Amino acid sequence: MRPILTGVATPAVVVDGDVLDRNIAAMARWTREQGIALRPHAKTHKIPEIAHRQLAAGAVGLTVATIGEAEVFTDSGIRDIFIAYPLWVDDRAARRLLALTEHARVAVGVDSAEGARQLGRTLGPAAARVPVRVEVDCGHHRSGALPSEAVGVAQAAGSAGLKVDGIFTFPGHSYGPGAAGPAVADEEAALAAAAASLRTAGFHDLTVSGGSTPSSVLSVGGTLTELRPGVYVFGDAQQWEFGHCRPEDIALTVESTVVSHRRGAAGERDHLIVDAGSKVLGSDRAAWASGFGRLLDHPGARIVALSEHHATVQWPGGEVLPPLGTRLRVVPNHVCLTVNLVDEVQVVRDGVVEECWGVAARGRNG
Amino acid sequence: MRPILTGVATPAVVVDGDVLDRNIAAMARWTREQGIALRPHAKTHKIPEIAHRQLAAGAVGLTVATIGEAEVFTDSGIRDIFIAYPLWVDDRAARRLLALTEHARVAVGVDSAEGARQLGRTLGPAAARVPVRVEVDCGHHRSGALPSEAVGVAQAAGSAGLKVDGIFTFPGHSYGPGAAGPAVADEEAALAAAAASLRTAGFHDLTVSGGSTPSSVLSVGGTLTELRPGVYVFGDAQQWEFGHCRPEDIALTVESTVVSHRRGAAGERDHLIVDAGSKVLGSDRAAWASGFGRLLDHPGARIVALSEHHATVQWPGGEVLPPLGTRLRVVPNHVCLTVNLVDEVQVVRDGVVEECWGVAARGRNG
Repeated sequence: MRPILTGVATPAVVVDGDVLDRNIAAMARWTREQGIALRPHAKTHKIPEIAHRQLAAGAVGLTVATIGEAEVFTDSGIRDIFIAYPLWVDDRAARRLLALTEHARVAVGVDSAEGARQLGRTLGPAAARVPVRVEVDCGHHRSGALPSEAVGVAQAAGSAGLKVDGIFTFPGHSYGPGAAGPAVADEEAALAAAAASLRTAGFHDLTVSGGSTPSSVLSVGGTLTELRPGVYVFGDAQQWEFGHCRPEDIALTVESTVVSHRRGAAGERDHLIVDAGSKVLGSDRAAWASGFGRLLDHPGARIVALSEHHATVQWPGGEVLPPLGTRLRVVPNHVCLTVNLVDEVQVVRDGVVEECWGVAARGRNG
Repeated sequence: MRPILTGVATPAVVVDGDVLDRNIAAMARWTREQGIALRPHAKTHKIPEIAHRQLAAGAVGLTVATIGEAEVFTDSGIRDIFIAYPLWVDDRAARRLLALTEHARVAVGVDSAEGARQLGRTLGPAAARVPVRVEVDCGHHRSGALPSEAVGVAQAAGSAGLKVDGIFTFPGHSYGPGAAGPAVADEEAALAAAAASLRTAGFHDLTVSGGSTPSSVLSVGGTLTELRPGVYVFGDAQQWEFGHCRPEDIALTVESTVVSHRRGAAGERDHLIVDAGSKVLGSDRAAWASGFGRLLDHPGARIVALSEHHATVQWPGGEVLPPLGTRLRVVPNHVCLTVNLVDEVQVVRDGVVEECWGVAARGRNG
């Protein structure tokens, strides 16, 4: 068992630097072996120190979700960024995008002809400085044009003076036990259809970008030229529960303190409360999740309720409840939310805090 | 319909100052009429400007959840604070508590004899400077001693050199349609039993503190001497959906932009995506909620899916989908999480931004 810190006030977000480095290296190696460029999604960590480690390991650039995130990472010296979101760009946003292009190559997503025209109009004569990628819906049913509609979006972009340099999709329906395989097949089919139609219409040199952490191990080069996983750097309880990572691959935990014991329905004192609640863990809970997070060192425990500063943990039957004051490591369900709730993370190696990294892009939602 | 801002980048957390003032005044008046002291829970807003308005309207002090929140509010000049949480206090936390007592009266929660002894030990000779209140579980089944156990906790606190100045409970099971009435009855019974046993054991001048926003309108003085509602200042979709507030009572919304349209299962373009996701709304969703939040000006719309930067909205059948670029006001399900995700809120009156308030206690989880 990795040592638990006792010197920090709880709840504290703690990153195991060695596990982080292993995760970064493993994804870089995998994508290299598949012949796919790696453009990690930095929304997961929002931390420049981690972004630079990803680039040093071979990533071609970063993915972000917002202009604000792009500003933070270009400020930290990143020179190639894709905003994988169908932005609706008003004049103010256009000025921010153009300012970014003075320091970095910045591409943005577009999923409609109206969005493309709006982008071209607000960028004006500088439209060609911001390449666009057409978002395709491959089955997650969030944003994205249908594969058959992608060429229309690309043509509208071209007419608006924008350079179309690729297509992208997010196979978000890969999240869930057993869901990655079918989602990868959907992704491949949607991207292949959309890419073919764009090429037929005269769009060439296209980046074909996909991926998510659960689907990454099933991704192969060919149609796909670029992968954008995010969560793989840390892992989380979702990835653990559907078998994509092992407990020893989890680099980020929320160190917490047992503050209360209570009786369960049978009258036994078999529940405890720790001081990590939704304001540090986030409250995502998929239908298939076993609870509101997991305990790294106690896989049989279940977080059965969560409020802002309380996680209620049902302790495994027959095991002695740890005393009040015990420190426990909570693995959040969805780590992207956790990092966005704190200003800094403690970086430990061999149980010693070596550094404290600021979450520089925390809260940059727009 | 209140005007929608167009000058701020979305997503933006916007507070209607007039509605906020009305909500603050209404709760102050109600508790005054019931003869109950009001000690609002500041975890909801985390904003000193709002805390001072609550005190000016008659609140006796503030409630907070953490030492970090207490530090922010005492720094802003608040002189009476109750940390309504069963803290496990180590030496570092004890030093922070004692530092607080130099500027304010600061009481803390305790729900176990072990917790009381730990607090007395770490505070040492200064133990009497931090009054404690015994937490009682009235049916929410989170932290809190059983009513029958409260006297034992109080006696342990007394033996540890602590002054017991009250008991408290949180009727959290008041959240839900029709749940407030039974929860208030549970609260009354639990507090009455615990208070009687403490008085019999020689503890007097006790504050008997309860309350939540949903239960507040059913609370009457007598057993209860103090109320700690939080959400009432803003309202949210939870309160709206179980009938505790009306849309016109909702003071906080997340202004967002329509970025994408998509087809629903029937093939119609009847869904839209706005740029407010879980990283600004929070992802709490109770079993009885109609979705992941509501649209203030479109009560028939439903937020059927939420990811970090996308809310997927099902538009009411037969109504025309608003065009891309339209601004919509999202009402979060649980406003306490929303405020904790942003550094500042825009304060508007009559549709004009008058002030920008910093969320000074954001992220102060420990």
